[in-house]
Amino acid sequence: MLKEWVKEDKLSDEELSARLEKARAELAIRQMKVKEANLPVLVVFDGWGAAGKGSVLGRVIKNMDPRFFKVETLSEPTSEETRRPFLYRYFVRIPKEGKFSFFDGSWMGEVTQHYLQGDIGKKEYKEHLTSIKRFERTLNDNGYLVVKFFFHISEKIQKKRIKELEKNEHTRWRVSKNDLWQNKHYEECMDVYDEYIEATNQFVAPWYFIDSSEKKWAELQVTEILISSIDTALANAKSKQNAPLLQNTFPLKNTPKLSEVKLDKTLTDEEYRKELDALQKRLRALHNELYHKRIPVIIAYEGWDAAGKGGNIKRIAGALDPRGYEVHPIASPEPAEKARHYLWRFWNRLPKDGHIAIFDRTWYGRVMVERLEGFCTENDWQRAYNEINEFEKELVDWDAVVIKFWVQIDKDTQLARFTDRQNTPEKQWKITDEDWRNREKWDLYEEAIDEMIQKTSTKFAPWYILESNDKKYARIKALKIVIKAIEKKLETK
Amino acid sequence: MLKEWVKEDKLSDEELSARLEKARAELAIRQMKVKEANLPVLVVFDGWGAAGKGSVLGRVIKNMDPRFFKVETLSEPTSEETRRPFLYRYFVRIPKEGKFSFFDGSWMGEVTQHYLQGDIGKKEYKEHLTSIKRFERTLNDNGYLVVKFFFHISEKIQKKRIKELEKNEHTRWRVSKNDLWQNKHYEECMDVYDEYIEATNQFVAPWYFIDSSEKKWAELQVTEILISSIDTALANAKSKQNAPLLQNTFPLKNTPKLSEVKLDKTLTDEEYRKELDALQKRLRALHNELYHKRIPVIIAYEGWDAAGKGGNIKRIAGALDPRGYEVHPIASPEPAEKARHYLWRFWNRLPKDGHIAIFDRTWYGRVMVERLEGFCTENDWQRAYNEINEFEKELVDWDAVVIKFWVQIDKDTQLARFTDRQNTPEKQWKITDEDWRNREKWDLYEEAIDEMIQKTSTKFAPWYILESNDKKYARIKALKIVIKAIEKKLETK
Repeated sequence: MLKEWVKEDKLSDEELSARLEKARAELAIRQMKVKEANLPVLVVFDGWGAAGKGSVLGRVIKNMDPRFFKVETLSEPTSEETRRPFLYRYFVRIPKEGKFSFFDGSWMGEVTQHYLQGDIGKKEYKEHLTSIKRFERTLNDNGYLVVKFFFHISEKIQKKRIKELEKNEHTRWRVSKNDLWQNKHYEECMDVYDEYIEATNQFVAPWYFIDSSEKKWAELQVTEILISSIDTALANAKSKQNAPLLQNTFPLKNTPKLSEVKLDKTLTDEEYRKELDALQKRLRALHNELYHKRIPVIIAYEGWDAAGKGGNIKRIAGALDPRGYEVHPIASPEPAEKARHYLWRFWNRLPKDGHIAIFDRTWYGRVMVERLEGFCTENDWQRAYNEINEFEKELVDWDAVVIKFWVQIDKDTQLARFTDRQNTPEKQWKITDEDWRNREKWDLYEEAIDEMIQKTSTKFAPWYILESNDKKYARIKALKIVIKAIEKKLETK
Repeated sequence: MLKEWVKEDKLSDEELSARLEKARAELAIRQMKVKEANLPVLVVFDGWGAAGKGSVLGRVIKNMDPRFFKVETLSEPTSEETRRPFLYRYFVRIPKEGKFSFFDGSWMGEVTQHYLQGDIGKKEYKEHLTSIKRFERTLNDNGYLVVKFFFHISEKIQKKRIKELEKNEHTRWRVSKNDLWQNKHYEECMDVYDEYIEATNQFVAPWYFIDSSEKKWAELQVTEILISSIDTALANAKSKQNAPLLQNTFPLKNTPKLSEVKLDKTLTDEEYRKELDALQKRLRALHNELYHKRIPVIIAYEGWDAAGKGGNIKRIAGALDPRGYEVHPIASPEPAEKARHYLWRFWNRLPKDGHIAIFDRTWYGRVMVERLEGFCTENDWQRAYNEINEFEKELVDWDAVVIKFWVQIDKDTQLARFTDRQNTPEKQWKITDEDWRNREKWDLYEEAIDEMIQKTSTKFAPWYILESNDKKYARIKALKIVIKAIEKKLETK
């Protein structure tokens, strides 16, 4: 695509100035409309080193109100960032509703550079391309506008610009090692960029080539494309157009319905104590190994109110070194979280490699409480099954151990536990009116949960049901599953 | 993707039979739901020769009602078909609402085979991939379910099966030359298939690999995937989810608004006659050349009622050899046309190469009358600008000359011509109540037309405005544009 690209004829100076003046004024208007429509806009500036991305970006934002945009300069990942999935540092930087984020450099630059320099192989590179396509698509599906620019200059112009920058002591720092490497391997880079662009040139997030041989001309191209893309996104926002649901392509496990789960499993106190002790010891030892081998673990808990999630989590956490794990209680999202993609707050809470994150309630809120209470649209929760499978696939591809527990009890057991909480002064804080209201919707929830388990029990991240009428049984089962999953992962390392 | 694909473990005979029985019954239910929901379903069976596509297809349809599906066997294009754009024979076979079309072989097989055997080069192949992605996406956007299966067998199994088929005189005919070629060049084919699949594995039309080493097992995989995909499409249909509007990526021309068009251009009778005669002679000569060089020409006419489209077309057609052109008057769509993608009826009317098709009203009805009269949804007409640009890009890539005329008059001229028609007995058939009603909506139409011209004046298929207050002037201008466009194309041939 890039290789066959034919530049547009440049305009006369006069025409260029006139169109630029008009375009700048139009962009200023769009900026207000973006704010009014709560549209989040992510603009990617990528391309050849010394192509003038930075200075064109500087020109574009000069006409914008600084309250409405943020510039993210993305060169090499920090050491903290390299310990997370490669998309982490991009996902945590996505803009809020109504704001622009300009990315100076992006996942394209990072991934192609690592591939070109042999840091990642073909297989990992292809996996990254798939991840990137999913990332850009899910942003679009969730109402984001993603505009991607590739700043193009010839080998000759690049060489000339690098030399000019190097001549001056004030600009010398702007020439990176990578720029020099690129210019030396221009043809090789061109092949990889061309392939990358072709592979990621999705309808919902297409690439635009910017002839960057002249700054004013580059600014005009960028500004005009931004205006037209914003108009398209505003039309989408205005008519509340939803993303189509996608065919499932992830391999699924056959799963039972909740009503088919037998809840009569129990353990005696003695069996429980003995097993608990041995299993916690084992888990402690494994945690050490995980830390040394830098394997991340993510344990997700969902379950009925009063099913015993808290106590179950305590038995896992109790076995772990407190410096190596974190428990994330998930309540309703904060305003800053609500203003972004609903998975943003979970990306933000991912553990470093070698660490364990335990989620007390999770991203599955989307297809349970948010679905049933109308906190999101039907399209939102219907789309979420696939989006969540994709999210967990990222975690698994990052080499994390991902374990999902559904803590199951029956309706009578819940009633008994609610009543007990009500009548026991030191437990009263644990029961609220909301719990009783949720209980009234038991059947609706059960239907939603069955659908959730069926659609998100992928082979790479299946659900485990913890029969928790007897809490002791459920705790031991959870420990065993966690241990087995970690052991299995350690075997491959 | 294909190369790294890991087959699922096969089931036990018992489990296989049980699941198959269940799946068949479920598919029968889905068939009725597809009918009720008016969902068009296009299922593609592709993959290795001798992989058993045909017999698995036979098994799948055995449980379906023959009134609800059609099987399309697509081997090599006929000579009539090769004289059309390569997607033509697929587009004209898309199913109606509520029906299934099973394609035994598809555009994948055709395009990869031609590429593998050197009939088309890398550049044309890549163009075809882009066309295919657009085709599959626009079907999805217009409410079609597209399910794509790739039947996979190893080189060894393929060889064995081919030998078995050849042994028996009743099955020998089923082994094609291409099957033999494939087996001999298995690795080479694998590389191309793998790349093809990766390039066309879109979220809205993903690929499914079918382990085709055993028929019953292959049938189960196909049936279960069909069920799940149909359920997704039914959920889309039920909640009337619309496709998001796409960012424009086609280069556009700057265009004037209709109100800026000067309509005072005229010709004297004498000038007119002289020019007409010369130009028609020239066009007649060019038509011959077109025919010999097999270049197709498509001329699209849109314009106000009484603007003089008919007379204008007559002057073009009058210069042409009647065996080499056709005029297509476009009225509102027939039921069979309404039940398919709105561009279907235009694909059906494409000329053979070397021929000229003149459309008296066109696919632009979508963004004018259908928009303003509410014959389609807002999402439909908003999406159509890009869909139409993509359609015309197919025509241009096929090497057609594409000319689009907007025949422009002012409101007073229309009134004068309406009144004249009303008052002249032999012209009265030309004026209807609808014309008067449309006239009342002049301003709304003008707004829609301005938007249409702005968004679909691509550099490869721009609009030409014919100032037709003086019909003679407009006719001469049209002839000149047609001649110039044909001459330009002939120069490159």
